[in-house]
Amino acid sequence: MSKALLASTSTLHGEEYLEYLNPEIKIFFSEVEEVIFIPFARPGGISHDKYTHLAAEAFKRAGIKLRGIHEFDNMQEAIIKSKGIFTGGGNTFLLVSELYRHKLMQALQESIQNGAAYMGTSAGTNIAGLTMQTTNDMPIVYPPSFKTLGIVPFNINPHYLDPDSNSTHKGETRETRIKEFHSINTQPVIGLREGSWLLVSDNKIELKGKLSARIFKTEKLPFELETNSDLSELN
Amino acid sequence: MSKALLASTSTLHGEEYLEYLNPEIKIFFSEVEEVIFIPFARPGGISHDKYTHLAAEAFKRAGIKLRGIHEFDNMQEAIIKSKGIFTGGGNTFLLVSELYRHKLMQALQESIQNGAAYMGTSAGTNIAGLTMQTTNDMPIVYPPSFKTLGIVPFNINPHYLDPDSNSTHKGETRETRIKEFHSINTQPVIGLREGSWLLVSDNKIELKGKLSARIFKTEKLPFELETNSDLSELN
Repeated sequence: MSKALLASTSTLHGEEYLEYLNPEIKIFFSEVEEVIFIPFARPGGISHDKYTHLAAEAFKRAGIKLRGIHEFDNMQEAIIKSKGIFTGGGNTFLLVSELYRHKLMQALQESIQNGAAYMGTSAGTNIAGLTMQTTNDMPIVYPPSFKTLGIVPFNINPHYLDPDSNSTHKGETRETRIKEFHSINTQPVIGLREGSWLLVSDNKIELKGKLSARIFKTEKLPFELETNSDLSELN
Repeated sequence: MSKALLASTSTLHGEEYLEYLNPEIKIFFSEVEEVIFIPFARPGGISHDKYTHLAAEAFKRAGIKLRGIHEFDNMQEAIIKSKGIFTGGGNTFLLVSELYRHKLMQALQESIQNGAAYMGTSAGTNIAGLTMQTTNDMPIVYPPSFKTLGIVPFNINPHYLDPDSNSTHKGETRETRIKEFHSINTQPVIGLREGSWLLVSDNKIELKGKLSARIFKTEKLPFELETNSDLSELN
């Protein structure tokens, strides 16, 4: 089983970037000398360099070195050799397109299967699922495939948002969108609320953080899963 | 120039399906004997038959006959011969995939260029833009292309939603998502609020309804466009 930390969001309201995850990062990457950062999702269109600087500052506060994948001449080799990888959030379509363009999707899978510790936030967490098809992002670019890493045997919806009963907006709720996903696809989906993360290790997938998560299975009513539950049977 | 009525949403809060558009539908399709309905976007996974029934009931209240495209043996021929077409909302990825699968994207373009009146709501409006890349929907299926009808020379974001200043949610706002779109793409985007529609005719594109719309251009600050404005220069 792979080793992964998959967070719904990088940042909680009123906090610094990765602040609430700082203690987790310290433990998760404790045996890693240098983490490779994948900045391809470019939130708000930020440059690779600026995004990497932001991540490096946050990792420095956890006592861990971090370097952007775009700084390597041979990105595939860097990923294969790496012992720790962090993929930041932003636009999932752009992230997946760039991973395929640089032939890194398979390299990532190999590296993680060989024991590299993988951390994701938001888009970086979404791609740990079977496909990117439960992303919330706009299709700003056309990727060659929607297939992603499959570190976990289901799909992930990051930034999961409960329906707002006071809303007068008629756009689909998140739950309706996932229902539409299940009118065509069969894999389960976990709606991961902000402040929650999945910890994958030793044949276990655990829900962490203070909140419960919402589980969606095809042709079943969605249900809540309490924090610290084991999700190993979800597939 | 084509003839089109492109609404942000089918339904306003507390109203029946297409209720607020009833007077517009009467005028827009006044010279059309039978409107062809495209139910492929299947909101919430509803069947083609049920969705067509819903649309037919609403059109009956406007005194207009409507029939589902899936009822025709030769869908391409039906579209080419049609004088009026209505595409309902739902999932844009599914809609676009089905239009390409049935080879209807080009048939629609031809029909509209030859004078067929085209009405869309939500996903049906999104596909009237140059590409579907400013949809809000989940990528529940992989379409062969993101290119759409191009009835208007820009992109449309239906159900446009202003940022909620009280929100503690860290998912991207609509404005941030469109900014990410413009980090890669150059065409303008109109954020069409619920209750607004575009009326395309006689070399004019007019904004209708009570609300203003938000216009996004690459490397410019977004701005508001008042209702009844002419958008013919937006490209």
